[in-house]
Amino acid sequence: MSLLVVGSVAFDSIQTPTQSRERILGGSATHFSYSASFFAPVRLVGVVGDDFPDEYVQLLRSRNIDTAGLHVVQGGKTFFWKGKYEPNMNDRETLEVQLNVFGDFRPKLPESFRRSEFLFLANGSPVTQLSVLEQTLGPRLVVADTMDLWIREQHAELMKLFKRIDGLVMNDSEAKLLTDDENLVAAGHKILKLGPRFVVIKKGEHGAMFFSEHETYVLPAFPTQRVVDPTGAGDSFAGGMMGYLASQGNFEPKTLKEAMAYGILVASYTVEDFSLDRLQSISRSDLDLRLGQYRKMLSF
Amino acid sequence: MSLLVVGSVAFDSIQTPTQSRERILGGSATHFSYSASFFAPVRLVGVVGDDFPDEYVQLLRSRNIDTAGLHVVQGGKTFFWKGKYEPNMNDRETLEVQLNVFGDFRPKLPESFRRSEFLFLANGSPVTQLSVLEQTLGPRLVVADTMDLWIREQHAELMKLFKRIDGLVMNDSEAKLLTDDENLVAAGHKILKLGPRFVVIKKGEHGAMFFSEHETYVLPAFPTQRVVDPTGAGDSFAGGMMGYLASQGNFEPKTLKEAMAYGILVASYTVEDFSLDRLQSISRSDLDLRLGQYRKMLSF
Repeated sequence: MSLLVVGSVAFDSIQTPTQSRERILGGSATHFSYSASFFAPVRLVGVVGDDFPDEYVQLLRSRNIDTAGLHVVQGGKTFFWKGKYEPNMNDRETLEVQLNVFGDFRPKLPESFRRSEFLFLANGSPVTQLSVLEQTLGPRLVVADTMDLWIREQHAELMKLFKRIDGLVMNDSEAKLLTDDENLVAAGHKILKLGPRFVVIKKGEHGAMFFSEHETYVLPAFPTQRVVDPTGAGDSFAGGMMGYLASQGNFEPKTLKEAMAYGILVASYTVEDFSLDRLQSISRSDLDLRLGQYRKMLSF
Repeated sequence: MSLLVVGSVAFDSIQTPTQSRERILGGSATHFSYSASFFAPVRLVGVVGDDFPDEYVQLLRSRNIDTAGLHVVQGGKTFFWKGKYEPNMNDRETLEVQLNVFGDFRPKLPESFRRSEFLFLANGSPVTQLSVLEQTLGPRLVVADTMDLWIREQHAELMKLFKRIDGLVMNDSEAKLLTDDENLVAAGHKILKLGPRFVVIKKGEHGAMFFSEHETYVLPAFPTQRVVDPTGAGDSFAGGMMGYLASQGNFEPKTLKEAMAYGILVASYTVEDFSLDRLQSISRSDLDLRLGQYRKMLSF
């Protein structure tokens, strides 16, 4: 079934303890859509400047990602983020942000995108996320991401959003901030009361937790020594999850759990190199192979 | 098969963000042996002062824990620890330590304990741990715990110990300190090279990782909202693990993984109340029930 993502497309400059890269391809919608494309076609809505190389657009298109919703602002510059990771590769410091054309991003869905069954609202202002929702025609599943900025500064709008979505995906630190509860299990249950029918709390190297009225579970990350760059791992997780759901055409508990596993495994590849580099070297069969290892790891 | 633990028996005064307790029963050998006793009889070696209440000794004995190795120093005082937990219930600050009789602890195994098939050397100086090893007669499986103090201050002795043990159990922060590696998967593999045939890295609320030459896996903690006091969770984990191994009489990969799961589940009960309070209210069947839930949680 059709899967739509609305989010950022960006240039990232990244410093890790051992390596650095300048102006590589990044952004939430980029990581999401590439990761989802292992499972299903994707419709992408985002904005870039005319400094955005055509080869990147072609790269996305080659993956069955429909870029009809990728707006190019002539004379504008693409969103730029520069960050530095701590030795633990979990904590990071933002060194520079240039919102550029993303600062004025008022997403407008192409007519052909309005009827999309699965919708992912990548991290963005809840006002923008709500405006996207208004433009859709009866999506079957709406999942959103958010971040500390909106929890702090647009709380009322966020609460309004939560009542309109089916699923919420967020980081552990954001879940604690939102609920003022340090226990993630308690936090997950509190967030359910705000509206979403399910909540996924991402724990980085420790995996992800799932909460719904009848289910609470945690799945660990796939253990990997090769953590080169964690940027985009969360969006990659969401992409794998939503892509798999769209491919199955349902979001039954069983399908959701498989989707969580696939999300974890796509992300486990994403962190093994910068940008989309590692994902470009694998195929769906690699994911299925790792799924087999992961299943075996968790059975006893 | 017979299971021997050598470690501390203590009084703990504990402050959590919401509650506090004074001079409750604690210590590594206490938590270990009570947890192991759900699965197998235990032989305990430790030391207390004559201020140690007989009711605590009786409590241990009622669980098929042989206290013939619990030395009572007349006129001495029992090891005392006072600590305070941060709101996240993971980080804690030591407010006071009185080593008392534990400061001069030179464990001497009763003759009847020397031939014990399964041996757990709870956290202590590696010199002491080695001296215990010298007193044993052909144990089949020797597992040790350690801590940052010994990594920093008795490194050579610790390296000597590592060459004599089969398994090592330690916290994530200690594994990072020992290997100077922030990636726990890399750290686990580095520690294997120091001697142990398997390594378990405990990650608190995030579960535990297992490393051997042929296997690397991670199992999450059992998700619980009710975290009242995490003190003793690590020793409780080790007790559940070793108790199950002793009950099965082998340490094949399959048995080790089941033992890891039982360790995680006993610890998930331990944290639900202070001291041994929660464990005193459950039976083996509760652990088996939770094991079923845990297995279901991890299958998809």
